[in-house]
Amino acid sequence: MADFDLLIRNGTCVTAADTFNADIAVKGGRIVATGTDLGTADREIDASGLLVMPGGIDSHVHLAQPSAPGTPQMADGFETGTRSAIAGGTTTVIPFALQARGENLRAAVAAYHEKARGQSYCDYGFHLIITDPTPQALGQDLPGLVESGYTSFKVFMTYDDMVLNDRELLEVFDCARDCKALVMVHCEGYDAIRFMTEKLEKAGKTAPYYHGVSRPEVVEREAAHRAISHAQLVDVPIMIVHVSGREAMEQIRWAQQRGLNIYGETCTQYIALTADDMKGFNMDATGGKYVCSPPPRDRDSWDAIWEGIRGGVFSTFSSDHCPFFFDGPDGKMSGKGKTSFRWVPNGIPGVENRLQILFSKGVSEGRISLNEFVALTSTNHAKMYGLYPKKGSIAPGFDADLVLWDANREETITQAGMHHGADYTPYEGQKVKGWPVMTILRGKTVCEEGKITGSLADGQFLPREISPYAAK
Amino acid sequence: MADFDLLIRNGTCVTAADTFNADIAVKGGRIVATGTDLGTADREIDASGLLVMPGGIDSHVHLAQPSAPGTPQMADGFETGTRSAIAGGTTTVIPFALQARGENLRAAVAAYHEKARGQSYCDYGFHLIITDPTPQALGQDLPGLVESGYTSFKVFMTYDDMVLNDRELLEVFDCARDCKALVMVHCEGYDAIRFMTEKLEKAGKTAPYYHGVSRPEVVEREAAHRAISHAQLVDVPIMIVHVSGREAMEQIRWAQQRGLNIYGETCTQYIALTADDMKGFNMDATGGKYVCSPPPRDRDSWDAIWEGIRGGVFSTFSSDHCPFFFDGPDGKMSGKGKTSFRWVPNGIPGVENRLQILFSKGVSEGRISLNEFVALTSTNHAKMYGLYPKKGSIAPGFDADLVLWDANREETITQAGMHHGADYTPYEGQKVKGWPVMTILRGKTVCEEGKITGSLADGQFLPREISPYAAK
Amino acid sequence: MADFDLLIRNGTCVTAADTFNADIAVKGGRIVATGTDLGTADREIDASGLLVMPGGIDSHVHLAQPSAPGTPQMADGFETGTRSAIAGGTTTVIPFALQARGENLRAAVAAYHEKARGQSYCDYGFHLIITDPTPQALGQDLPGLVESGYTSFKVFMTYDDMVLNDRELLEVFDCARDCKALVMVHCEGYDAIRFMTEKLEKAGKTAPYYHGVSRPEVVEREAAHRAISHAQLVDVPIMIVHVSGREAMEQIRWAQQRGLNIYGETCTQYIALTADDMKGFNMDATGGKYVCSPPPRDRDSWDAIWEGIRGGVFSTFSSDHCPFFFDGPDGKMSGKGKTSFRWVPNGIPGVENRLQILFSKGVSEGRISLNEFVALTSTNHAKMYGLYPKKGSIAPGFDADLVLWDANREETITQAGMHHGADYTPYEGQKVKGWPVMTILRGKTVCEEGKITGSLADGQFLPREISPYAAK
Amino acid sequence: MADFDLLIRNGTCVTAADTFNADIAVKGGRIVATGTDLGTADREIDASGLLVMPGGIDSHVHLAQPSAPGTPQMADGFETGTRSAIAGGTTTVIPFALQARGENLRAAVAAYHEKARGQSYCDYGFHLIITDPTPQALGQDLPGLVESGYTSFKVFMTYDDMVLNDRELLEVFDCARDCKALVMVHCEGYDAIRFMTEKLEKAGKTAPYYHGVSRPEVVEREAAHRAISHAQLVDVPIMIVHVSGREAMEQIRWAQQRGLNIYGETCTQYIALTADDMKGFNMDATGGKYVCSPPPRDRDSWDAIWEGIRGGVFSTFSSDHCPFFFDGPDGKMSGKGKTSFRWVPNGIPGVENRLQILFSKGVSEGRISLNEFVALTSTNHAKMYGLYPKKGSIAPGFDADLVLWDANREETITQAGMHHGADYTPYEGQKVKGWPVMTILRGKTVCEEGKITGSLADGQFLPREISPYAAK
Repeated sequence: MADFDLLIRNGTCVTAADTFNADIAVKGGRIVATGTDLGTADREIDASGLLVMPGGIDSHVHLAQPSAPGTPQMADGFETGTRSAIAGGTTTVIPFALQARGENLRAAVAAYHEKARGQSYCDYGFHLIITDPTPQALGQDLPGLVESGYTSFKVFMTYDDMVLNDRELLEVFDCARDCKALVMVHCEGYDAIRFMTEKLEKAGKTAPYYHGVSRPEVVEREAAHRAISHAQLVDVPIMIVHVSGREAMEQIRWAQQRGLNIYGETCTQYIALTADDMKGFNMDATGGKYVCSPPPRDRDSWDAIWEGIRGGVFSTFSSDHCPFFFDGPDGKMSGKGKTSFRWVPNGIPGVENRLQILFSKGVSEGRISLNEFVALTSTNHAKMYGLYPKKGSIAPGFDADLVLWDANREETITQAGMHHGADYTPYEGQKVKGWPVMTILRGKTVCEEGKITGSLADGQFLPREISPYAAK
Repeated sequence: MADFDLLIRNGTCVTAADTFNADIAVKGGRIVATGTDLGTADREIDASGLLVMPGGIDSHVHLAQPSAPGTPQMADGFETGTRSAIAGGTTTVIPFALQARGENLRAAVAAYHEKARGQSYCDYGFHLIITDPTPQALGQDLPGLVESGYTSFKVFMTYDDMVLNDRELLEVFDCARDCKALVMVHCEGYDAIRFMTEKLEKAGKTAPYYHGVSRPEVVEREAAHRAISHAQLVDVPIMIVHVSGREAMEQIRWAQQRGLNIYGETCTQYIALTADDMKGFNMDATGGKYVCSPPPRDRDSWDAIWEGIRGGVFSTFSSDHCPFFFDGPDGKMSGKGKTSFRWVPNGIPGVENRLQILFSKGVSEGRISLNEFVALTSTNHAKMYGLYPKKGSIAPGFDADLVLWDANREETITQAGMHHGADYTPYEGQKVKGWPVMTILRGKTVCEEGKITGSLADGQFLPREISPYAAK
Repeated sequence: MADFDLLIRNGTCVTAADTFNADIAVKGGRIVATGTDLGTADREIDASGLLVMPGGIDSHVHLAQPSAPGTPQMADGFETGTRSAIAGGTTTVIPFALQARGENLRAAVAAYHEKARGQSYCDYGFHLIITDPTPQALGQDLPGLVESGYTSFKVFMTYDDMVLNDRELLEVFDCARDCKALVMVHCEGYDAIRFMTEKLEKAGKTAPYYHGVSRPEVVEREAAHRAISHAQLVDVPIMIVHVSGREAMEQIRWAQQRGLNIYGETCTQYIALTADDMKGFNMDATGGKYVCSPPPRDRDSWDAIWEGIRGGVFSTFSSDHCPFFFDGPDGKMSGKGKTSFRWVPNGIPGVENRLQILFSKGVSEGRISLNEFVALTSTNHAKMYGLYPKKGSIAPGFDADLVLWDANREETITQAGMHHGADYTPYEGQKVKGWPVMTILRGKTVCEEGKITGSLADGQFLPREISPYAAK
Repeated sequence: MADFDLLIRNGTCVTAADTFNADIAVKGGRIVATGTDLGTADREIDASGLLVMPGGIDSHVHLAQPSAPGTPQMADGFETGTRSAIAGGTTTVIPFALQARGENLRAAVAAYHEKARGQSYCDYGFHLIITDPTPQALGQDLPGLVESGYTSFKVFMTYDDMVLNDRELLEVFDCARDCKALVMVHCEGYDAIRFMTEKLEKAGKTAPYYHGVSRPEVVEREAAHRAISHAQLVDVPIMIVHVSGREAMEQIRWAQQRGLNIYGETCTQYIALTADDMKGFNMDATGGKYVCSPPPRDRDSWDAIWEGIRGGVFSTFSSDHCPFFFDGPDGKMSGKGKTSFRWVPNGIPGVENRLQILFSKGVSEGRISLNEFVALTSTNHAKMYGLYPKKGSIAPGFDADLVLWDANREETITQAGMHHGADYTPYEGQKVKGWPVMTILRGKTVCEEGKITGSLADGQFLPREISPYAAK
C-alpha cells in the first residue's frame, strides 16, 4: 500500500511568506507532508516548471440571488458559478445568503443551503446579507447563526431593496461586536445616488455610461467615511469591500493609521476596467456589460488601487462575481435596462478571471511578489473569514486545495473559454501572462487544462470560525 | 454748523488689516472721514488710550425661538438678546427665522419680523432655518427670499424637529447653488446620537454630563465629512458652523486644501468651556448650564480650535447664543431635563461675552493679532453674509458701528453684570483682560460702561447681498 | 493756503482688508485723512474709475551685486532697478547688502549705501546677505546692524561663493533668535546640485535647459525641510523665499500646521514661466534668459503655488528681481554660459512686472481678491520686514505711497516698454489685464503712464523695525 | 540507518505567514521535510507545547569594532557576541566590517574575517561600513565586494570618524544603485548634534542624560528626510535603520506612500527604554548604561514605533547590539565619559534580548501576531539582505536554524543570566513572557536552557545574494 494518496512532485511551492521547492504529500484530502523523498503514492503529479499555490479563496461571490422584476436574471447558480471558480483556480467561495426584507434569517440561510447542496464543484461557506435588522434578527437569529458558522455579515448603504439607514447600520455593528462577527460593508450613499440618478434621467442621460456618473468617487468616499465613523463609535472592526479608487482607499488608510481596525477589499474590475468601458461601442447598451457598483473608474484609479494593495490597505482581492445575462433568453438586453441605467443590474462575472488578472498585472508586471499574490487571493481570505488553518496555505494539516500555475503561459481571455453561466465576459480580449493548469480540491483534481474533472458532489459546506479580525 | 455729527478722537483704529491712529468723523450714521484735524463736530468722544474697532457682528445667534413642550423657554427674545449684544460690543446680529415643519417659509419670516420690529437695540438680519424643503419652499419661496435679502440658510443634520435627511440636504444644497445662497450646516449625525442616547439611558446614564458622551467628536466629524461630500457632489460652497474640536476642524482643513469652498465657524464655548463643566457640582443637574451642541470637549480641543483659527480654517467666530432659563419661572430646572440629558435644551447664552473672551484669550494671551480679532468678530461676518461694505470695517462709507475697547482692563464675568434674559452665564467667574467701554451704532452711543443708552427703536433690519463666498 | 498738499479723489481705495470709495488727503508726504469733502489741496488727482492701492513693496530684489568672473554683469544698479520698480507701481524695494567672504559686514553695508545714495527713485532698505558668519559677524556686527535697522538676513544653502553649511546655518539662526532678526533662506541643496551638475556635464547635457534638471524639486524640498528642522531646533522663525512648486510648499504648510513659525514667499516666475522656457528656441542659449534659482517648474506647479497663495502658506509675493545682461556689451551671451548652464548667471529681471502679472492672473482671472493682492504685494511685506505702519496701507499716518491702477486695461509686456537695465524681459509677449497708471511716492508722482517723473534724489533709506514675526 | 539526522516532533511551527502543527525532519543541516509520520531519525526532540520558529536573524549587530581613544572598549568580539546571540535564539548575525578613514575596503573586510573565523557560535555575514568613499572604493572595491557577497553598505550621517557629507552620501547611493547593493543609513544630523553638544557643554549640562537632549527627534527626522531625498534623486532604495520615534517613522511612511522604495528598521530599545533611563540614579554616570544613538525617547514614542511596526513601515526589528564596558577593567566608568556625555560611547548590548522583548511586548501583549513576529525577527531580515531562501523560514530546503520557544514562560532579564561580554544589561529587571528554550543551528543544538552546547567552530560565513529590495 502506498504511503500517500497523492504526491505532487517537483513544483515550486508558494505560500503567503515563502517560496520553496518541495513535493507535497496528500492523504485523506489533506496535506500530510512537504519535502523530498517523502515516499510512495497512489497517484503522482509532476509539477515541474510550475508554481503550486493554495487554491484561490474568493470571499466575495454572488450566486443564485434573485433579480428585480423585469431585469435580467442572475446568470450563475451554484453549478455554473463554482464550475467557473475551479476553472479559474479557486477552490473555495463564500457567496451570500440574502435575507429578503421581511424574511426570517434562518429561513434565508436554509434556502441557500437548498440551492447549494449537491450543486457545487468547490467548497463554500455563506456570509449573511442583512436587509431587515429586526430585534428578532439581531437578538436571536444572528448570534445563533454566528455560532453555527456564519461568522460574517454584509450590509448595504445603497440599493432600494437592501439599504440600511444609519441607525440600522449601528445596530448591526453593535450586534456584530457582541457576537464577534465581521461586518462587510458596501459603501455607497443611497440618497446621493438617487439624487444624481434623477438629475441624470431628467436630463435624458440614461445610457449605461451614466451609471458611473450617478455614483462618482465622492459618493463612495462619503459612505466609507460614514461606515468607518460608525464602526469607531461602536468600537467594532469592519471590512469595506470592493473599493474602487483613491478616495475610499485613502479613507481606509487614514483610519488604519489612526489605529482603527478597518479592513479593505478590492476587486479585479478596479485594476482592469474603466468607466469608459461603460460607454459601449458608442454610448449604447453594450456598455451595460460593465455595469457594477461601485463602478470602474479610470486608469489613475488603477494606480491608487495598486498603491493600496502594496501598502497593505487591502487585505483581500476578490472578484465580486455577480453575473447577469446581458441578452437574456430572447437574445435581447432587458427592455427596462434600455430605458435607463437605473435598471441595468449591477454586477459582472469574474470568479474565473480573478487569479489570471491579478497574477498577470501584479506578479508578471512586477507590482507584487508571488507571496503577496497568495496572500491576496487565498491566505488572507482564509484568515479574515475564519477558514484558517483549514484553508489558505501549503503546509501539513491544511486541506489539499491547490492550483498548479504556469507563470509563463500567455493567454487571451474570451467568452468561448469561460465556464460560467453568463453570456459574456467583461474581460473579453484581455491578454494575461500566468494561467491555471490544474485545480485540486482536497486532493482531487477537479479541473485540468480547462476541462472539468470534478463533480457537483465535490463541494462541501464550510462552517466558519470566528474571525481573528472580529471584535475581541 | 459743525462739520460732523460726531468725532471720535485720539483712538487707535483697528481694521482686519491695519492699526492706525486717527480720528473718525461720523455724519448721518456713517463714517465720512478718518484722519487728523478733520473739522468740528456736534459731539466728540475722546478715545485716548482705547482701541476703536468695528462693532461686533455675531452671525450665529438664536433669539425668540420656540422650545419643545415641557422644556425651558428660550431666555432671550429680541429685546434682551440685542441688549446683551450691544453691552458686549456687538452692533449687528443675524438670528434665525425658523421654519417649523409644515410652515410656509415666507410666513416664518414674517413672524420673526413681527418679533423683531421695534424690539431691537442693534441692527439685525435673518438667516432662514429650513426644516421642510418642500418643492414650494425650494422652487419658489427660497429664490424669492434670497432676492429679498435673506441670502443664507441653515440646515440641521440632527434634532428631531429639524433634521434633514441626506436627500433633503442635497436638495437644499442644489437650491442654494442655483439661487446663490450660502448654506450653514449644523454637523452632527442624528442616528448616531439617538443610538448613543438610548444606550446611555438604558444604562441609567442620564445626567447632563452624558449629553457630551452621547455625541462624541466622531459624530460631529462624520457629519462634517458627509456635508462636505454632499457639497462637493453638488458643487456648492457651505459653511460648517460651531466646530467644536480637532476632528471636524481637520475635515474642513482637508477639504480646503483640496480646493473645495468649505468654510468654518467656531464659537466661544469651544475655547472656554470643557465637557467637565457638564458634570455640574457632582454629576448633578447644574451641569445642564453648559449643555449645547456640539458639546464643549476638552483642553486639547481648545488647542485644536486655536490651530484652526490661526491657520485660517475658521473664518468667523460666533457665540451661537441660544439661551434657556436654567431654573424656570418657578426656580426649578424643568422636570423633564432632570429625567434625562435628552430633554435639557441645547444651548447657552454668550452674545455678550464673545468679544471679551476671544480678545482675552486671543489677543491678550498672544495667540492672534488685533487685526485677526477684528476679522474674526466683525469683518469676516460682514463679508461672508453679504453685509459688506456697509458693515464690518472702519473706513469712509461704512456704518459708524464701533466699539471702544480698553485692552488693559481686567474684569471678571458674572451673571450680575450680564444684560441678557437668562438666569445664569456659563462663563461665570472667568477672568478676562480687555473690555468694551462704549458701543456705537450708526453714530449713536447705545451702551457706555455697561449702561444701555440706546433704545429699542435703534435696531434696523438688514437685507443682505448675495455672499461673495456663495456659488458663482 | 490749501488744507493739503495733494488730494486723490474719487478712487476706490483698497487695503489688505477693505475696499472703499474715498478721497485721500496727503500732507508732508503722508496720508492725513481719507474720506469725502476733506478740504482743499494744492494738487488734485482724479482717480475716477481707478483702484488706489498701497504702493508695491518688493522685499526680494537684487541690485548692484557683483557677478562671477567671466559671466554677465548684473544689469541693474539702483538707478535702473528702482526706475523699473516705480514704473511697475512699486515704491519700496529691499535689496541686499551682500557680504563677500572675508569681508566685514559693516563695510559691506557701507558699500551698498554708497551705491544707493542719491541713486534711487524709490525708498529702500537693506537685508544683509551673510556668507561668512565669523564670530565677529555673529557676535558683534549683526546685533549692532539689527539695531541700526537692518533687521533681516538672508542665507544661502547653495552657490559656491555663498553657501553656508549646516553648522553655519545653525549659528546664524541662533544669532537671529538672540537679536530678533528675521532670516530669509534660499533653500536648495548645494551638494545635490553639484552632484547632478557634474553628471549632466559628463553626459554633455550643458544647455540652459539642464539648469532645471540639475536642481529638481526634490532638491528644493530637501533643503526646505532641513531649514525648517534647523529653525525648529533653534526655535527661531524663518522665511523660506522664492518657493517654486508643490514640494517645498507642502513642507512649509506641514510646518505651519504643526505650529512652527515658518513663513513662505513665492515669486512671479513660479506662476508665469515653466522649465520649458529654458529650452529656448531649440535647446539653445536663448533658454538662458529664463535661468533662475529655483528654476521655474511646470504648469502643475503653478497650481500648487496658487494653492499655497490661497491657503495662506505664502505671506509675500516678490519678484526676486536679479537681472543679468543676456547679450552683454558685445551683443553676445557670455562665452562661459555657452559652455555650460553652470555658468549662466542665476536670475531674471521682474521688479516691474510683479504687480501686473499677479493682478492679471490673480485678480482678473478670479483666483484671489483685491485685498489679498494688496496683502501679497505690499502690506505683508511691510509687516514682515518692519516697515509697518509707515508703509503698506492706506490710512492716516502712512506714507503716501500709492499706485493708481486700471483694473480693466489690457496690455502686452514687451522689452520695449520696460524701464530696467536688462536687455530682455522673460515675460516678453505675456498679455495682462490690469496696469499701473500712476505711481506716487510720499505724495509725489514719480511715474505716470510709464513716464518717469521722479528723480534719483527721491528715494530714501529705510531703517527697519524688528519684525513682529521674528523671535520674541 | 535512520531516515534523518534529526526530527523535531510535535511542535507548533510558525512562519511569517503560517502556523501549523508538524514534525520537522533535518538532514545534512537542512530541513528536508515537514509533516507527520515522516520516518526515523538519529535524534529526536520533543517540542510538545512549544513554538518552533526560524532562528532569529539579527541584521544590525556591532562586534569587535574599535573604540575612540580613552573611551571604553567594545565589550563583545565574535566569541561573546555570538554566544549571546544563540542564547537569545538568534542563529545568524550580520555585523559590520568597518572601513577606517584611509583604509582600503578589502583590507577592512579581511581584517574582520580574521576576527570572526573560528570565533563564532552562529552564522554570520558582513555589511560594509563606508567612511571613506574614495574613487578606488566606489569604482573598484565596492562592486567587487558586492559580487563576493557583501551586498549591503552602511553609511553614517553623524559621528566624527564616520560621517559622510551630502556629496559623499550621493556618491555612495549612486554606486549602490549601479552595483545593486542595499544602503543602510544612520540618520542623525552631524552639525546639529555638534551645535547642540557645544551649547550643552557650555551650559555645564554634561551628564549622560544630555546625550538625548543633544540629538532630539527633529535631528533624526531631518536626516531621515535628507537621506530619503538623496535616495529619490539618485533613484535608489535605502534602509533607514534604528528608527527611534514618531518623527522619523512618519518621514519613512510618507516616502513609502509616495511609492519610494524606502525601508525602515527599528530596535528593541525603542520599545523598551526611555530617555529617562539616561538620568541614571540621579543624573549620574549610571545613565551612561543607556546611551545609544539615536537615543531612546519617551513612552509616546513606543506607541509611534508600534504604529510603524503594525503598519508595515518597518520591515526589520534588530538589536543594534553595540556593547561597551560600563565600568572598564578597573571597575570605573571611563574618566572621559564622566567629563561629558560626548565621550560616552554610543551603544548598548541587546542581541540576546531582542526576541524576548519583542515577543513579550508584541505577541504576549497582543500587539502583533506570531507570524508578524517571525517576519520581523527572521524572515524579513533574510529577504532584505540576500540570505533567502537559505535562511529565514521553516520549509524544505531551508537551513535547519530553529528556535524552540515557550510562549508562556515568564522570566526576568538580569545580567546574571546574560551570555554577552558586557558588564551590564540595559534591560535589567524587565519582565518578559516568552522565552527561548533551545536554539538549533543547521540541525545542531547550540544552546539549551541557557547552556551553550555549540562550539566556536559552528559559525559559518555567509556570502549574501543581491537583495531583492535593492535597485533593479
